[in-house]
Amino acid sequence: MELYLERGFEQTTVAEIANRAGLTERTFFRHFADKREVLFGGADALKQLLVGSVADAPDPVAPIEAIAKALEGAGALLQQRREMALQRQSVIDTNAMLQERELIKLASLASALADALRKRGVDDPAASLTAEAGIAVFKIAFARWINERDPAVLPEIIRKLFDDLKTVTAGGP
Amino acid sequence: MELYLERGFEQTTVAEIANRAGLTERTFFRHFADKREVLFGGADALKQLLVGSVADAPDPVAPIEAIAKALEGAGALLQQRREMALQRQSVIDTNAMLQERELIKLASLASALADALRKRGVDDPAASLTAEAGIAVFKIAFARWINERDPAVLPEIIRKLFDDLKTVTAGGP
Repeated sequence: MELYLERGFEQTTVAEIANRAGLTERTFFRHFADKREVLFGGADALKQLLVGSVADAPDPVAPIEAIAKALEGAGALLQQRREMALQRQSVIDTNAMLQERELIKLASLASALADALRKRGVDDPAASLTAEAGIAVFKIAFARWINERDPAVLPEIIRKLFDDLKTVTAGGP
Repeated sequence: MELYLERGFEQTTVAEIANRAGLTERTFFRHFADKREVLFGGADALKQLLVGSVADAPDPVAPIEAIAKALEGAGALLQQRREMALQRQSVIDTNAMLQERELIKLASLASALADALRKRGVDDPAASLTAEAGIAVFKIAFARWINERDPAVLPEIIRKLFDDLKTVTAGGP
C-alpha cells in the first residue's frame, strides 16, 4: 500500500511489493492472485462477515433490518481501520481499472447478501431489492465517510442513510 | 451482434464486423471506440433520455417519482427492442469483461441521474440515494424481464419494483 502511494499503482511491481514486505515473489503469489488483490483481498473477509451477520440475525426481523445491521457491523470494522481505508481509496481513485474492480466487488457483495436473505426464506424480488438497496446505501455512506462530507462515524452514517432511503422511496424529499 | 452470437465475442474481429456491416474498418472506428462499444454505444443515448426525462419532470414531483418515470420511459423503449436486448444480453453473459463494462455503465447512469436531481434542487444524500436506488430497481427489473421470470412488460416490472422497494425499505417483508 505504501509503495502504491509512493510510486503509483501502475509503476509498482510485484517484486517491489514482495521485497518491501520481506517476502519472496512466490510467497506473494501464494497470498494474492495479482497485485490488485493487495487492495481487494479484504473483500472476501467482508463478504463472509456480512453473510454471517445476515444468517445470524434474530428470526422475526425485517430483511432491511438484517441488512442494515450487517452493514453497520462492517462499518464499525472499517471505522477502526480508517487510516488504511483512506490510503486504499486514494490509490483506487488514481486508476480506472481499480475503480472497476471495486464496482465488481460491490456487485458481488449485493448478490451474496441477496442469497443470504433467500436462505432466511425471503422471496424475490424482495431479497435482491433489499440487498441492492443496502449496497447502494453502503456505497454512498462510504464515499461520504472517506471524503469527510459527513463528520459522523461510519456505522452512524449507514444507519442514517437507511432512514433517508426509507423517506425518499416513500416519496419524501 | 449476429457475429458475436455466431462466433463468440472474443473471436470476432473488427474487420469481420465492418465487413458484415458493409463498412471499412476506418468507418467502424469513427463510430465505435472499440468492439465493446457495439454493445454499449446505446448507453449514452439511454443516459441522455433518462437525464432529459428527470429534467423535464413537472415541478412538484417527488425525486423518486421523477426517477421512476424516467426509468419506465427507458423501459418502454427497451420493450420495443426486446429481441435485440435478448441477443445483446446473451453475448454479455458469456464474457466477464463485458459484464464489468455493464456495471460501469450502470454506475455512470446512477451518477448522471443524481446530477439531474441536484439540478432540480434535490440535496444530498437524497439525490444520490434516490438515483442509486432507482438503478438498483432497473438492474433487477431488467434481469427479470430478460430471464422471463416475470411475464409483464418492462415498464410495468419497473413500476412494480419501485412499489416493492418502498415496502422493503419501510421494513416490510
